[in-house]
Amino acid sequence: MRDGEPGIGQRMVAAIRQRIVSGQDPPGTRLPSSRALAAEWGVSRTTVTAAYDQLVAEGYLEVRQGARPVVAAGLRGDGAAGGAAGGVGARLSAFGRRLAGFPVPAGPGEPGLVADFRYGELSARDFPALPWRRAVTGALARAPAVLRYGDPAGSPALRAALAGYLWRARGLRCTAAQIVIVNGSQQGIDLCARLMLDPGDAVAMEEPGYALARQAFAALGARVLPVPVDRDGMRTAALPPARLAYATPSHQFPLGGVLPVARRRELLAWAARHGAAVIEDDYDSEYRYDIAPVPPLQAMDEEGRVLYLGTASKTLSPTLRLGWLVVPPGLVEPFARARRLLDRQSPALEQEALAALVEGGAYERHIRRARRQNAERRAALLAALARQLGDSVVVEGAAAGLHVVAWLLDVPAALEAALVAAGRAAGIGLHPVTPLFAEGVPARVGLVMGYAGLEVAAIERGVAVLAGVLRGVG
Amino acid sequence: MRDGEPGIGQRMVAAIRQRIVSGQDPPGTRLPSSRALAAEWGVSRTTVTAAYDQLVAEGYLEVRQGARPVVAAGLRGDGAAGGAAGGVGARLSAFGRRLAGFPVPAGPGEPGLVADFRYGELSARDFPALPWRRAVTGALARAPAVLRYGDPAGSPALRAALAGYLWRARGLRCTAAQIVIVNGSQQGIDLCARLMLDPGDAVAMEEPGYALARQAFAALGARVLPVPVDRDGMRTAALPPARLAYATPSHQFPLGGVLPVARRRELLAWAARHGAAVIEDDYDSEYRYDIAPVPPLQAMDEEGRVLYLGTASKTLSPTLRLGWLVVPPGLVEPFARARRLLDRQSPALEQEALAALVEGGAYERHIRRARRQNAERRAALLAALARQLGDSVVVEGAAAGLHVVAWLLDVPAALEAALVAAGRAAGIGLHPVTPLFAEGVPARVGLVMGYAGLEVAAIERGVAVLAGVLRGVG
Repeated sequence: MRDGEPGIGQRMVAAIRQRIVSGQDPPGTRLPSSRALAAEWGVSRTTVTAAYDQLVAEGYLEVRQGARPVVAAGLRGDGAAGGAAGGVGARLSAFGRRLAGFPVPAGPGEPGLVADFRYGELSARDFPALPWRRAVTGALARAPAVLRYGDPAGSPALRAALAGYLWRARGLRCTAAQIVIVNGSQQGIDLCARLMLDPGDAVAMEEPGYALARQAFAALGARVLPVPVDRDGMRTAALPPARLAYATPSHQFPLGGVLPVARRRELLAWAARHGAAVIEDDYDSEYRYDIAPVPPLQAMDEEGRVLYLGTASKTLSPTLRLGWLVVPPGLVEPFARARRLLDRQSPALEQEALAALVEGGAYERHIRRARRQNAERRAALLAALARQLGDSVVVEGAAAGLHVVAWLLDVPAALEAALVAAGRAAGIGLHPVTPLFAEGVPARVGLVMGYAGLEVAAIERGVAVLAGVLRGVG
Repeated sequence: MRDGEPGIGQRMVAAIRQRIVSGQDPPGTRLPSSRALAAEWGVSRTTVTAAYDQLVAEGYLEVRQGARPVVAAGLRGDGAAGGAAGGVGARLSAFGRRLAGFPVPAGPGEPGLVADFRYGELSARDFPALPWRRAVTGALARAPAVLRYGDPAGSPALRAALAGYLWRARGLRCTAAQIVIVNGSQQGIDLCARLMLDPGDAVAMEEPGYALARQAFAALGARVLPVPVDRDGMRTAALPPARLAYATPSHQFPLGGVLPVARRRELLAWAARHGAAVIEDDYDSEYRYDIAPVPPLQAMDEEGRVLYLGTASKTLSPTLRLGWLVVPPGLVEPFARARRLLDRQSPALEQEALAALVEGGAYERHIRRARRQNAERRAALLAALARQLGDSVVVEGAAAGLHVVAWLLDVPAALEAALVAAGRAAGIGLHPVTPLFAEGVPARVGLVMGYAGLEVAAIERGVAVLAGVLRGVG
């Protein structure tokens, strides 16, 4: 055993990196098992694992849990990362090289589709265009004499209005000063990741879970550790040691479980034990149908470990890019400093417009209207699925939110691609749950079916088309 | 010499890191000179310098060129980084800890001021409120039936409109596909830094130069190497080896030099030699008074090494948060992937509104109007400075842009703080050039005087007040 030998691990890392950079091991190359490499170098498997972890953190390797690591896509000389640009394109940072390995969601379906069940889209009919236009016009009229940068943490008016709204709507206790306005949830996740994670740090992530959160963590070189999810959400007993956890307690994405209080306590205890932070992504809690609203994890947090994340993307529009973080008092300053360097602030007119809508009550009136609309869409979807697919479908997570997961019991995973293609050919956009799994994929095809972008008639036609497609594929 | 000894450098790094993390060496502690430490460990100074560089990259140390490194502010246990939050606040990433060490610009002057010469502010009178409102209303009316995420690189309409505008206004040759819409220049700089830089990489930065660019690079753990600036801008002959250079060729910020063609060639040759990229921050090129517009560096770039950055912050409003990058074709994909993970996209309504203004010609008409307004403000400022301060002031960089640098020949650097305080007390906001220097500060006080946020009368009153203050201080 040469483990005692100073720097042996570093030399192993350097050797592997050299083979990759020199092109000897091109992207996709599978590396030896830790057992084999340990034997070859005469070191313990722990030393090899540590070396692999570092190279994963640096973006040279990618690992699918369990399997042997492979050389990451998009490395020097690999066009995928922009090498095509020659010059600078061939010299992307580890961050840039990691991105090149991530799957990219398919573009929006052709306008011609009967129905695209893509999650995250909203019907423009629901958007309060007139109130919004009035609010923007009012903000323009009230514009100060001098146009200058504001507080990077956000408009004081909006932060004050949201502090009241979050208390009324979510029972969330915070001062306006704890609120940091962000360009939607994604920027909130990226901000938390950049402020909380160093390359190689562990992040506990729901499995299955929100793919763009997982990618944001992995892009920074963090090790994303999957935590299994059941019908009650994250199985907190299975949480591994980590520096950060990402959770969707009020409506697990995508499976829809609502985290029971015991598990919430377990999650907070875990965070205290490991000195970890928890991102509570409360992405769609405005929409609850047959269950009572659940208070956020943040309301149970005594130690200031929860970073609460809310968004207007599900209530107004995903294209507005307005969201909010609620952070412990001591973190406001670091978040504001980071935001100043990332992009200074969110657009002022939009912040003032949203502040006016929330302050005047129009925002909550709108949410009540949108909830009724989406309750109808949801009912239509559930009825159509039952009518058209009967016992061959099991629906999960329908109690809240703007999507359900439909498990197609008669369609083995192997037929997933064929089903999506057949659906597309027949005029419907189908979106399997598979990309939300980092590891093991279920044996049956599950579809994430978003309905907030569709009208009732389209939903019914779409499900009828799906039934026909299934007869063909099944 | 123990240099040959495997891992000696790593052990040195670990030892220093341990002393810092344990609190033995609190923030601000000055480390031994490389000579002394080399003697103590029996290694070469190169080994010590490498160890220091790594710890700077990791955020544990900060260095002022030449001087000995000091333990960075905001490390574990140091409240500055949010330690006050207890728990998570005490566990910020290296990125978060580095931020805590950066100076934060003073907030906006009290509304009561006679004149605040802060750079970067615009008069709301110049904002085309009516056309903008119409453009937003139009965009609302044209909203698609489904509100969904768009291309993270930006709205096709805006990118197409900007490709035409950049060609007409700047002689910049690019396809719409090469344009990436960003939330203002700052996000463009952060995007380039994240995609191009790894911790420890060298960045060549104008000295003096744009402080928030320097901070964005340093926050990522890059080593920012200052390149001296003279009246012709960056002294390209002094460029050190680096992976990225940040430059403002059409109007050096803050000193105002216009980079001559020979230096532009030298900058591009340097980039080719080192396989480096160049950020061309074209932040205010719309405003040129007594000199002809200079084509951008990007137009001379044969190899795809220039990342061109433009913004609406100086033409419409800094609070809109709209800017654009023009990148080599092979880099569009990496930039789009990064943008998706950072914050998905820029707000859709604003993008469509700006597209309509540019496409319809209103944007260029507005710029001509704003240029006339600012030419008047500039003339008033120059006349007032000459009238009130005569030979005791030398003005630099007045040929273009929205600010000048006024060197106060009779005011030694030591009196700078007193002058700013006296100015504030007398009702004017004065902003010294000093914070834009990373190293050696000039012997005389220089003021960055922005005028785009002030009306002529306020400029004249403000300079009269300044003259009075100078009589008191000088």
